[in-house]
Amino acid sequence: MFFKNIKILDEFFKIQEDMSVLIKGGRIVYIGREVPENTEEVYEGKNKLLMPGFVNSHAHTPMTLLRGYSENQKLQDWLVNSVFPFESKMNEQDVFNGMMLGIAEMLRFGIVSTTDMYFKCEEMCRAALVTKTKFNISNGMTCFDGSRLADNKSYKDTENMLREYHNANDGAIIVDASIHGEYTSNPDIVREMVEYALKNGLNMHVHLSETELEHRESIERRGKTPARYFSDLGVFDVNTTAAHCVWVSDEDIDVLAEKNVTVSTNAMSNLKLASGVCRVPYMMKKGVNVSIGTDGVASNNSLNFLEEIKLFAVLHKGVNYNPEIITPEEAIRAATLNGFQAQGRKDSGLVKEGYKADLIVIDMDKPNYYPAHNILNNIVYSSAGSDVCLTMADGNILYKDGEYYTLDIEKVKFEAVKSVEKILNK
Amino acid sequence: MFFKNIKILDEFFKIQEDMSVLIKGGRIVYIGREVPENTEEVYEGKNKLLMPGFVNSHAHTPMTLLRGYSENQKLQDWLVNSVFPFESKMNEQDVFNGMMLGIAEMLRFGIVSTTDMYFKCEEMCRAALVTKTKFNISNGMTCFDGSRLADNKSYKDTENMLREYHNANDGAIIVDASIHGEYTSNPDIVREMVEYALKNGLNMHVHLSETELEHRESIERRGKTPARYFSDLGVFDVNTTAAHCVWVSDEDIDVLAEKNVTVSTNAMSNLKLASGVCRVPYMMKKGVNVSIGTDGVASNNSLNFLEEIKLFAVLHKGVNYNPEIITPEEAIRAATLNGFQAQGRKDSGLVKEGYKADLIVIDMDKPNYYPAHNILNNIVYSSAGSDVCLTMADGNILYKDGEYYTLDIEKVKFEAVKSVEKILNK
Repeated sequence: MFFKNIKILDEFFKIQEDMSVLIKGGRIVYIGREVPENTEEVYEGKNKLLMPGFVNSHAHTPMTLLRGYSENQKLQDWLVNSVFPFESKMNEQDVFNGMMLGIAEMLRFGIVSTTDMYFKCEEMCRAALVTKTKFNISNGMTCFDGSRLADNKSYKDTENMLREYHNANDGAIIVDASIHGEYTSNPDIVREMVEYALKNGLNMHVHLSETELEHRESIERRGKTPARYFSDLGVFDVNTTAAHCVWVSDEDIDVLAEKNVTVSTNAMSNLKLASGVCRVPYMMKKGVNVSIGTDGVASNNSLNFLEEIKLFAVLHKGVNYNPEIITPEEAIRAATLNGFQAQGRKDSGLVKEGYKADLIVIDMDKPNYYPAHNILNNIVYSSAGSDVCLTMADGNILYKDGEYYTLDIEKVKFEAVKSVEKILNK
Repeated sequence: MFFKNIKILDEFFKIQEDMSVLIKGGRIVYIGREVPENTEEVYEGKNKLLMPGFVNSHAHTPMTLLRGYSENQKLQDWLVNSVFPFESKMNEQDVFNGMMLGIAEMLRFGIVSTTDMYFKCEEMCRAALVTKTKFNISNGMTCFDGSRLADNKSYKDTENMLREYHNANDGAIIVDASIHGEYTSNPDIVREMVEYALKNGLNMHVHLSETELEHRESIERRGKTPARYFSDLGVFDVNTTAAHCVWVSDEDIDVLAEKNVTVSTNAMSNLKLASGVCRVPYMMKKGVNVSIGTDGVASNNSLNFLEEIKLFAVLHKGVNYNPEIITPEEAIRAATLNGFQAQGRKDSGLVKEGYKADLIVIDMDKPNYYPAHNILNNIVYSSAGSDVCLTMADGNILYKDGEYYTLDIEKVKFEAVKSVEKILNK
């Protein structure tokens, strides 16, 4: 694959015009001004921008099946009366169908890699495998009694995933360890999960202080914040992505920075569920690696990542009364490189020779990109989500100009609807 | 034009499936299940939704030319060092070119009618006229000395517009009166402008308490808030749209409600410029007519209206810690009917027989609209801006599937870039 005459967002986050980029064996093998001979597939890049694909650092992808289902209500009512009963009826095929629908949407919106936490995870791996997408997948471990890890469903699912799917598709699929949250765990099983992750060299994925209630109850229950609880149990000695972090304290943020925990901020979901606003600028100032997640579609309600990036870039200006915080470059880094780093994908996230070709193309011919005083500003502030016109992982084109290359979009929509009908009629 | 097998958002904001809608003479003449004979133009509406077009109730459309220009800085620095010097070099042709670019973007994103305040307004009218779009256009009157209205440039521009363009294109173009803001006016000229508006039966368009500084300085300067200042001078005896209203007091909100002033909230611009968050739910509770605006593209930086609607629907939940406020129906009303009402377009904003055909079609076949538990939720929370696939004003198709019917998009982009190059090289 040879991108010709294309703009690129280079490794220094500067725009270069009229570049040649050659992809071979899933990697970027050449960036420059030369035009190689005998190139099989040529992509004319006039007025298009090649940049790193987006990393969705916190998702529950199969929840697409719940999009728009029974909402605009209090978090607890919505969970207990709508989400949990719906999910209890989701079988393996439903998880697969929801996952496929989510992947279709992600590809449309330029997401090439996702850190996901859900259940029946082998089905999620299967969908990732057939679509050639990148996923860090974990089963969100919960334990409501004193039982041990070996008896835990999540552990068994993780064991199966590890055996069948870990590093599948040349490393596209990575199995993570996960502890769902402080309030759904006990210290013994957390310690066991940490040991398990360290032994198997896995990353860790947790929810952390999403709501004021969760944060406060942890202090009441354990005499410490969720971050301190996890830290004391060694969770952060594993490479961890902590989702939400809306209510973490200053001291918690110091711990996250010190332990190199990646925060996945989920601004849209936190607003919609009325959980609050994560203190992203303060975290960045303290040196925390901040990435961007959508959370599940049931609370977002889309996987429109350019929309999420714009919200990331403007929301913190507004609530901090400071128009200078969060630059477009910082927003793009959070949406790309920072997420790849957290996933343990060290050679993804830059348009750089030797890096994996996990890339997207943005169609800058759309009127909303004119004039082009500053292309970084335009990408972050002026995009429509679907201005992504090509999505590629490991050098494979997965989506181009509305067409999907590794899934049958009509079948995916049909099967998702069938799952929903089955679940609601049960 | 005959829409066949189409979903509609009906006048009660409910979804009806498989409807027939007939447009004649710029109006909706039939909604039902029948299929009329001898219909010339048929639009197959399978899995598409016909709904009212969006009203952008506060814009400075020609500012598209400044998109992404010198930003991420303090409001005052940005205005004084970047915006004002740029604007001072904009001649008539530049205003026209910026306007055309903005119209192209609006049509892509489903905006059919805009309340706009800028300068060199005859050029704006000319662009509205040739593109058959709907605009309420005003010249934002400023006065920094004690001079009279008759000597004011804005007044002269308004007089010319009134003579040449008021009610042109069968009422598509409406000329409004305008007072730019409290801080750029004096009481005498405000009184004169009010008289002028009342005499000519015009609407009024003002900026109101956008920033804390503006609000506080008015109290220091005049002993009253901007809203009280305008109210005491009779401004609100004219049908008024007040933009921003971020810092208005409880008493101000009572005045806005009592005087039937329409608030145009500009959430994205207010966040990006770090002005704060308008208290929309409180205003709605008090009975204020709230509509949605983008503000100028220089501070938004797009005219992506579905993005603005989603932000409207989630932001206030988040900052008020209440997931039940602002329902999808309220968000759509604010984006459509409430804006048309403010513009004085009493027979636009509903899919209803006899109403003007100011309509859009949304392509619900996109993966982000699956499943369809609740179509209103999906439209508000799950749309990408460009899922609008048809935009129509007065029954004229202006945009369909990426094609423009009343403008040459390549020429529009070319001319806008030419204007920018000229301005920056001056």
